[in-house]
Amino acid sequence: MTSMNLLNEISIRYPEAVSFAAGRPAEQFFELDAVHRHLDRYLDHLRTERGLTEEAARRQVLQYGRTKGIIHELIATHLATDEGIEVPAESIVVTVGCQEAMFLVLRALRRGPEDLVLAVSPTYVGLTGAALLADLPVRAVADGPDGVDLADLRRQLAAARAEGLRPRALYLVPDVANPSGASLPLELRRELLALASEEDFLLLEDNPYCVFAGEERLPSLKALDTDRRVVHLGSFAKTALPGARVGYVVADQLVADGQGGTGLFADLLGMIKSMTTVNTSPIAQAVIGGALLEHGHSLRAANTEVAALYRRNLALVLEGLARRFPPGCGVTWNEPRGGFFLVLTVPCVVDDALLERSASEYGVIWTPMSHFYPGTGGEHQLRLSVSQVDPATVDRGLDGLAALLAAQS
Amino acid sequence: MTSMNLLNEISIRYPEAVSFAAGRPAEQFFELDAVHRHLDRYLDHLRTERGLTEEAARRQVLQYGRTKGIIHELIATHLATDEGIEVPAESIVVTVGCQEAMFLVLRALRRGPEDLVLAVSPTYVGLTGAALLADLPVRAVADGPDGVDLADLRRQLAAARAEGLRPRALYLVPDVANPSGASLPLELRRELLALASEEDFLLLEDNPYCVFAGEERLPSLKALDTDRRVVHLGSFAKTALPGARVGYVVADQLVADGQGGTGLFADLLGMIKSMTTVNTSPIAQAVIGGALLEHGHSLRAANTEVAALYRRNLALVLEGLARRFPPGCGVTWNEPRGGFFLVLTVPCVVDDALLERSASEYGVIWTPMSHFYPGTGGEHQLRLSVSQVDPATVDRGLDGLAALLAAQS
Repeated sequence: MTSMNLLNEISIRYPEAVSFAAGRPAEQFFELDAVHRHLDRYLDHLRTERGLTEEAARRQVLQYGRTKGIIHELIATHLATDEGIEVPAESIVVTVGCQEAMFLVLRALRRGPEDLVLAVSPTYVGLTGAALLADLPVRAVADGPDGVDLADLRRQLAAARAEGLRPRALYLVPDVANPSGASLPLELRRELLALASEEDFLLLEDNPYCVFAGEERLPSLKALDTDRRVVHLGSFAKTALPGARVGYVVADQLVADGQGGTGLFADLLGMIKSMTTVNTSPIAQAVIGGALLEHGHSLRAANTEVAALYRRNLALVLEGLARRFPPGCGVTWNEPRGGFFLVLTVPCVVDDALLERSASEYGVIWTPMSHFYPGTGGEHQLRLSVSQVDPATVDRGLDGLAALLAAQS
Repeated sequence: MTSMNLLNEISIRYPEAVSFAAGRPAEQFFELDAVHRHLDRYLDHLRTERGLTEEAARRQVLQYGRTKGIIHELIATHLATDEGIEVPAESIVVTVGCQEAMFLVLRALRRGPEDLVLAVSPTYVGLTGAALLADLPVRAVADGPDGVDLADLRRQLAAARAEGLRPRALYLVPDVANPSGASLPLELRRELLALASEEDFLLLEDNPYCVFAGEERLPSLKALDTDRRVVHLGSFAKTALPGARVGYVVADQLVADGQGGTGLFADLLGMIKSMTTVNTSPIAQAVIGGALLEHGHSLRAANTEVAALYRRNLALVLEGLARRFPPGCGVTWNEPRGGFFLVLTVPCVVDDALLERSASEYGVIWTPMSHFYPGTGGEHQLRLSVSQVDPATVDRGLDGLAALLAAQS
């Protein structure tokens, strides 16, 4: 989170610099009218398709409401439509963005001091923050070239257990990850699921860029999950509206309900949510519900234009890099299937001081990859984000980057 | 929170029973159109009074935003207008309801295993839940006839310190408390503030019913606070719209900023919020912001009609009790200045079994006061809520209650 503050602060101090730092979605398609339209659409749905009286519809959107949310059924249909994920709506908890979902899950998994969570490293800073808040230690698992290094995962599991610790779950972003841009190949997904069953831990699958993961989308871990090993975390911030702050978690695992029986993990998360935020604003949920209804529950359909924009941006940056850094020059990068991010590996040390110099002298902002490692790592890497790239300034930005790197050698 | 679940469940099983259990605000004045109108009003404010471009206004409401919120200045003006509280807007954190505010504060106060929070008992269940989530032990302080028993508070402080523990704060609702309905007299407020300075602890003042605290409102603790001893917790759930899920905390204390300097407690809470929910939905904040603007920042002005409704309901219930339970009959109750709640003291033991019988055989629902005590307490008391009382059924409900109590003697 300190990382985000530093980047915000540098962006404010150098407003003229070209930024490849923002993880925020593009704003070109933001519409204020859509908020009104989606709200009305959702209310129509309550009246006509759900048969609520005017009074009941009004109460659903304006009064205190169900802790686990009111658009869980729409989300279940969306997941079936776009992701091939078939889960009961009751296993979904609607949350205040994916951040709350991560906190609820990690807080639930921390039962004692022996619990810990593993995270594919580099790791999204929101996960690290939620774990800190939940007092749950995080241990890094190497990502390797394919997104997760299974041999290292096995080593970390064994090492933790040898210390008397209990690795409860592995957090990862299997599709066009933040920050690495990596996507797990299909076979590796299956192996990971098998390992999770064999070694008895959960997979926390974070899926914020789902519909931007390339033309030929691989099935999510949850879509492949036959053993309820996957807790699936979702967000509408990138696919609908960040300003709604609506995310969700799919938690169809069976857990002890504290009264001698078993219940859905989602219900336990709901109990923790009642102590955190009580319920997610039903007005905000209605806005997202209306967006889902407008597009037949498909965020893929809703995001055709913006997905094309991100693809164009990614292609522009990749082409720009190829023109400036020929093979053998010591600068390399990955070529993600889609998403918001790619990673540059460079000969010099990449730290906050270099970022400061980059912004002030070379007019370009990016994110040091070291920000995304719980321990050490990424010292020669930087993250470029393409989500808010302006084609008119991308060349100026990459020229600045090339000049900065040339000056370090 | 189990208490709320039990009450919800009983309400569902006995829909015909007259309920004095709901802590929810009245719904008579809920307006769907108001959501649209407030949203538009807030956007107008951004464009005209704040001078934002159309693009910047759109970004403020639809994009990710400031962690501490976007309507902090409107809230500061509201607090000055309605409450005589003068605080810098920077000391306000806008939260996902008051529940998140309580969690952020308690999580910040819990630095080690020696920390604890005191709470005037009976205590709002949301506080107990937030403390459980934050791993911060709660110890009860007796309320006494005036809302807080200072002698018991001194005893609890001394006892905790003798055990090597660190009482960080005292939580209380000084005006028409939930659940007791009690209000602290002015002189006691001053004594409490002096004690907080003398004994070096914070006062967590929860103020959800502020504008319903009677015609002659006493100054809040924060309005009397000259030593930054009071952390003031607020909610718009009862005074504007529960469905927005917007609350806030005023935290103008100076604390170590972790980098050798000092900063506002509000900034520390903002950092914790960035790990909990990132930011409160700016769409939901805009709805509340518009409501504040529509009524010249005054929730007192906005709530004239509904405040009259609550006063009428309270009077109806008090009159109904007086008719049914003459002096000396063994049933007594308090007469709150306003608010949602009053407490009945009865000869029999009041527990969940009695509530179940009351709902099934006598057609009336209420809340056992024992739900609001962290330890033991309230075994002969029940809470009646008047916020959703229907004048047409209040007599039937009180008849049921009288018959239930008669059958126990």
